[in-house]
Amino acid sequence: MTEKKSPENAAIRLSFYLRCLRKMKKEKSISSERLAQFMGTSGVRVRKDLSYFGQFGTRGKGYMIGELQEQISKILGLDRVWTIALVGVGKLGTALMGYPGFRKSGFHIKVGFDVKPSKIGRKIASVPVYHPYRMPTIIRAQKIRMGMITVPAEAAQESADLLIISGIRAILNFSPAVVVAPSYVKLTHVDFTTQLEIMTYFIINRTKEKTQTKLL
Amino acid sequence: MTEKKSPENAAIRLSFYLRCLRKMKKEKSISSERLAQFMGTSGVRVRKDLSYFGQFGTRGKGYMIGELQEQISKILGLDRVWTIALVGVGKLGTALMGYPGFRKSGFHIKVGFDVKPSKIGRKIASVPVYHPYRMPTIIRAQKIRMGMITVPAEAAQESADLLIISGIRAILNFSPAVVVAPSYVKLTHVDFTTQLEIMTYFIINRTKEKTQTKLL
Repeated sequence: MTEKKSPENAAIRLSFYLRCLRKMKKEKSISSERLAQFMGTSGVRVRKDLSYFGQFGTRGKGYMIGELQEQISKILGLDRVWTIALVGVGKLGTALMGYPGFRKSGFHIKVGFDVKPSKIGRKIASVPVYHPYRMPTIIRAQKIRMGMITVPAEAAQESADLLIISGIRAILNFSPAVVVAPSYVKLTHVDFTTQLEIMTYFIINRTKEKTQTKLL
Repeated sequence: MTEKKSPENAAIRLSFYLRCLRKMKKEKSISSERLAQFMGTSGVRVRKDLSYFGQFGTRGKGYMIGELQEQISKILGLDRVWTIALVGVGKLGTALMGYPGFRKSGFHIKVGFDVKPSKIGRKIASVPVYHPYRMPTIIRAQKIRMGMITVPAEAAQESADLLIISGIRAILNFSPAVVVAPSYVKLTHVDFTTQLEIMTYFIINRTKEKTQTKLL
């Protein structure tokens, strides 16, 4: 949890910078200090992060927003469309297949996999659904590199294994199970419960603070 | 993005420690070093985090797992059931209302709100759904403090405002919109796209590394 000085962490921050830049519709240029303000970080940090990836902006003039946006997009590989294979076409899977934010950002869930006969061979949210045994063939043929897992906990590891042998190199795991993967695969666990647990801490301590203030 | 030394960040780590402890079914005790290994952090960090909240474990003997689990749960406020109000009973909202992980961890989506007449007055995934105009009455009566937003982008801010005036103090925003809230409200944006953008960086750079290795 300590801040790693890895390029990967800089990439995480780049993704945030990009998000800020996208929101600026009126401005043409921005200083590193101003960009830093949006992030709650320092101008030095912003300049360091960007310099890690190349030469950006002009000293004293800041960054041209459109240009910087393009350059960051390229670094993050967002100047192309990424296709995704999703395993588990249940409620969450279906919701993700129809999630408008993905398409807008160049992510396209292209195939779904599910064991339920009633789903196989159909299109759900415009995405064709197949039986998982066809994963290796379909994923390889379509050159898909990213996967999402939205199956019940007990099927999560098996789904990950199948995705990986099919050529998937980055997996977003939405199931509540802990899944392991070899180091050449980027596995991210999306756990809504963790976020809730941090929120409860906030609520309790805010209430405590308030009570203390009242007592003073 | 730099590591804040705030108790809130310690709380985030506590939540991770708890997750690790829960997975240990066989062991009775654990050393700070071993717990640190799971997290990819240091024993010093673990001891510091825990000491921030009180006295835990015995020098040289480590922590009793069951006991530590209970204590962390208490600090994070997880020794009780938390009720949640959800706005936007679409696909994602419905998926979350039926998400088994929440109940298991003491989180209970108790009411849903939606403007669609076909949903109002019904129970969806066992959760009663009401029109948003009833938010203040229902949320106050049920003393709900946490909210989730799963509405389309254009309705996100309005939903947050309504939740906040109804007494909600922590919001998990799943909509793709940027929502603002006063400082006494903890607002967390769950953005699947950001996670995907970091994954693309990983895929590109892994591929590059491989190519470079091949060229050497």
